[in-house]
Amino acid sequence: MDNIPIGALISITYRSNFVRLNTRMKELGLSGGQFSVLMVLSHNQGVTQDTLAWRLLLDKGGIARAVKVLEDKGFIERITDENDRRAVHIYLTESGERIIPEVIRIDQEMEQIIFSGFTEKEKTQIKALLLKMAQNSYEAAYDKNDRKWKEFPLESCNKVPNVILKKD
Amino acid sequence: MDNIPIGALISITYRSNFVRLNTRMKELGLSGGQFSVLMVLSHNQGVTQDTLAWRLLLDKGGIARAVKVLEDKGFIERITDENDRRAVHIYLTESGERIIPEVIRIDQEMEQIIFSGFTEKEKTQIKALLLKMAQNSYEAAYDKNDRKWKEFPLESCNKVPNVILKKD
Repeated sequence: MDNIPIGALISITYRSNFVRLNTRMKELGLSGGQFSVLMVLSHNQGVTQDTLAWRLLLDKGGIARAVKVLEDKGFIERITDENDRRAVHIYLTESGERIIPEVIRIDQEMEQIIFSGFTEKEKTQIKALLLKMAQNSYEAAYDKNDRKWKEFPLESCNKVPNVILKKD
Repeated sequence: MDNIPIGALISITYRSNFVRLNTRMKELGLSGGQFSVLMVLSHNQGVTQDTLAWRLLLDKGGIARAVKVLEDKGFIERITDENDRRAVHIYLTESGERIIPEVIRIDQEMEQIIFSGFTEKEKTQIKALLLKMAQNSYEAAYDKNDRKWKEFPLESCNKVPNVILKKD
């Protein structure tokens, strides 16, 4: 087993989950590309596109495309900041809030599939190791002197979904 | 930490490593897309394109593109099977063999980066868990009744690189 390139395992996992994500998101009239934006909005309404790019470590172009699709389909609205005309905040519309529970379900299903047959201890272990792995990989791939470089968004992930809280 | 979608960690890891892979493969006049094919050829010369597609769980189109680039650049040659004219076997050329040690070095570097700060025990743990994760994800993404479905290639990975053996 030592001879399987670790990159191959990561690639198979990533591609397989993306195929499944696309199939599930199609049921909402969307595609895999919009999933992460909706997941962030389920935790943090009112984020700007820049914050989204940082939270997801995606380039601004990718975020802009996902936001455009979600806006065109009526799931989000963009509201310009009254104090800073360059900042545009993103909020879920009513239709957007309606699909969030399903988006969260898709995320939970994905986790169930990925961790099928894992003990609770193994799940805790691999989550911590995957976080370390993601951070290691990200920090080696991008140059800190590049103006596009973003700090690995560790802290920002520890939030309770506010949409969920509101609905409870 | 429980709130970070596991898909986000996998996606960041995959994308970061691919960015780095592209940068390193460019030094050989290639790109990330040809890396896995060269890694398989370092273990198994003479494989067919179908076997490559199965080993890497990639579609035949993706494999055909990677093989074409490698052939055009003179790193591999394709030899038609004398007994089965439809089967084409792939071999490294001399130039191909010359770059294999560097390709293997890129793979080792990637593993060092990914596992930076991991104990030996953590490395063994996460390798086993990643393998299970890749298999779970793959089996849930593709329909076993689909004629394109391929068995998860667990066994086939336990090979000693023959190029390495030859050079020692």
